[in-house]
Amino acid sequence: MSIKDLFSKMAQEAKASEIREMLKVIKSGDIISFAGGMPDPALFPVEEIRQIAADVLEQRPGAALQYETTEGYERLREELFKFMRSEGMQISSKEEILITTGSQQALDLFGRALLDPGDTIILEEPTYLAALTAFRMQSPRILLAPMDSGGLDSGALRKMLEGRRSGSKIKFLYTVPTCQNPSGLTTTEERRKELVDLAYEYGFVIIEDDPYSYLSDGKNPPFIKALDDERIIYTSTFSKILAPGFRLGWLAASEDLASKFAILKQSLDLCTNTLSQHIACEFMARGHLNKYIERLKPAYRRKREAMLDALAENMPDGAGWTRPTGGMFIWATLPPEFDTDKMLPEAVSNGVAYVPGSSFHPSGRGKNTMRINYSYPSIEQIWEGARRLGHTIKAYGTAL
Amino acid sequence: MSIKDLFSKMAQEAKASEIREMLKVIKSGDIISFAGGMPDPALFPVEEIRQIAADVLEQRPGAALQYETTEGYERLREELFKFMRSEGMQISSKEEILITTGSQQALDLFGRALLDPGDTIILEEPTYLAALTAFRMQSPRILLAPMDSGGLDSGALRKMLEGRRSGSKIKFLYTVPTCQNPSGLTTTEERRKELVDLAYEYGFVIIEDDPYSYLSDGKNPPFIKALDDERIIYTSTFSKILAPGFRLGWLAASEDLASKFAILKQSLDLCTNTLSQHIACEFMARGHLNKYIERLKPAYRRKREAMLDALAENMPDGAGWTRPTGGMFIWATLPPEFDTDKMLPEAVSNGVAYVPGSSFHPSGRGKNTMRINYSYPSIEQIWEGARRLGHTIKAYGTAL
Repeated sequence: MSIKDLFSKMAQEAKASEIREMLKVIKSGDIISFAGGMPDPALFPVEEIRQIAADVLEQRPGAALQYETTEGYERLREELFKFMRSEGMQISSKEEILITTGSQQALDLFGRALLDPGDTIILEEPTYLAALTAFRMQSPRILLAPMDSGGLDSGALRKMLEGRRSGSKIKFLYTVPTCQNPSGLTTTEERRKELVDLAYEYGFVIIEDDPYSYLSDGKNPPFIKALDDERIIYTSTFSKILAPGFRLGWLAASEDLASKFAILKQSLDLCTNTLSQHIACEFMARGHLNKYIERLKPAYRRKREAMLDALAENMPDGAGWTRPTGGMFIWATLPPEFDTDKMLPEAVSNGVAYVPGSSFHPSGRGKNTMRINYSYPSIEQIWEGARRLGHTIKAYGTAL
Repeated sequence: MSIKDLFSKMAQEAKASEIREMLKVIKSGDIISFAGGMPDPALFPVEEIRQIAADVLEQRPGAALQYETTEGYERLREELFKFMRSEGMQISSKEEILITTGSQQALDLFGRALLDPGDTIILEEPTYLAALTAFRMQSPRILLAPMDSGGLDSGALRKMLEGRRSGSKIKFLYTVPTCQNPSGLTTTEERRKELVDLAYEYGFVIIEDDPYSYLSDGKNPPFIKALDDERIIYTSTFSKILAPGFRLGWLAASEDLASKFAILKQSLDLCTNTLSQHIACEFMARGHLNKYIERLKPAYRRKREAMLDALAENMPDGAGWTRPTGGMFIWATLPPEFDTDKMLPEAVSNGVAYVPGSSFHPSGRGKNTMRINYSYPSIEQIWEGARRLGHTIKAYGTAL
């Protein structure tokens, strides 16, 4: 029997994602990448991290290099508890917090702990690709809730749910309500409240995935986790507010859920990187986090505004795009006859990369959309990349 | 609907493991722990790590703090490729290596990539608890191969396989062939060769989990990965030869398998901690690894010999135990009337902890066995803990 005959159904179905292939493309040659979702390494708080790493390895190497409990470093959970409370979220103790290996691991845990094959989940369309991939490993049925300029359209979702005759148990709604990946859209306060109502009416939980709200300009709507405690599972990450290389995230959920997630996490990696937990803890305890966030906001605002200006100057008539208050992405929509999957090779040969919107549409829709990242490229690259992208789109459109 | 009704079958079945509860016990009060499997933090290469961390954060912070590819840091994969080749293992390129978040993640990947519910796997009895837990998430059928002083009894396994009339597809054999956790036993070269023959005859792959061989005294039998390339999946970890807090492991498998594991790993945590990968890479590139291993061997030998002497002095007649060449564990067998699960609370109240052998027996056998860790406690604690353990066993035996 050949080796490939040994693969599980899950493995046979697993395919490399566009973004993953993009990450390889980026590393090769003179390509300006609007794909991927990496922070700007020039903005990493290197001095603070270097000092803290030295201190931690000086003062408590035995603890910082040893296994940690699966739940995570006590002091870090305490810092996160205080942080979430200060942000107005509903959480009653640090026991509701589980440190995860990036928020990606939290997504994997949600799928494994909550989904049996055939269970139903509700996703936004478009939705975060890596969440979709993680949840799909459990073979769920997927309900797609539409989005518009107000974010997730809770009214349309209510109609879908009311119209739903039968169907399997709805386990959760997954949403990135603030500066969403990929669309950049933010769901309004009114709609967030209606989502909580729906969770109680239909008996599901809401997963609030929140990597971006801390970097958003101006005033965000309240966290969904600020509107309710029990039925909201909150997850966030240090990838955008410290360093993605730490693979450090956390989730907050009612203790029943959090403790079950911890038991399952044991089989995934026993515990999360201890040194990174100590560094992140000191980064918060020393008051660096809020200062760093204030440093990041204007830097990313400049890049976002540069991208918006560059798109305005280079995109052809008939193209539209979102104007996010934060996050790392702008969502562009081209005339319906465009196919951004087919156009990608031309863009790459013109020296610019993006992620085709179809990747974020479980329905296969969104062929004429694309996700544009502005956090990673320099301002010069943003202008030159937008020029190349505009050129590609015009050439592609003419050839249609 | 209550929150708990949302749990998946997997989550409902997931229970906290004895070892996990032990880790909590350790942290409380004056208990000498022979449970767990932690290295001695006094032996961590702190100076080397501190220097390397400072250099890496000085010289390439942008790379060391950024996302890495899912496959892992190129230079680390190159170092591991050279290392495995120098150890005589059959591996043809660094593309066959995937960096994992501890070898626990490799175990999780094996289960997910290779097992559909009802598939058959072969485990040693006793077997590594965290592997059993990870594989069980895929609901496999389990064949148990007996062990004796020569390690996994390949002859007995052959008879089991020949006698097997029907049954589902056998996907893999999982073994820790050198200084096994929990038994401390090492499988002989002759038996390793027969296992490879069986893999080809019956069409399964062999997973060689190897956390301990590098710390073993004297000459180990050849790696199973040295006897064959295609059908052997090798996995190891930096937890015992650098620092467990880094959650850094690797696997080596034919490229078909390795690339599939990488695609699945994407959904687990996108990539492994980048800073730890850079530190481990420098630790190897600067030649620290082999020097450190030579420093560790005599230190653990002293502890192992102390534990063997202390057991000889304190264990009652009728008790027996293994005499490993390395690893971190000694396996003790008490007279058949003993139940080490029932005895554990008494041991803990006497100030000593161990892991009951039944945890490592999927069959529920092994009630009269226990796993004793000697790597974590100090030599003084080893002697005092063995005294407390001997006292507990004698008292328990008298009360039977």
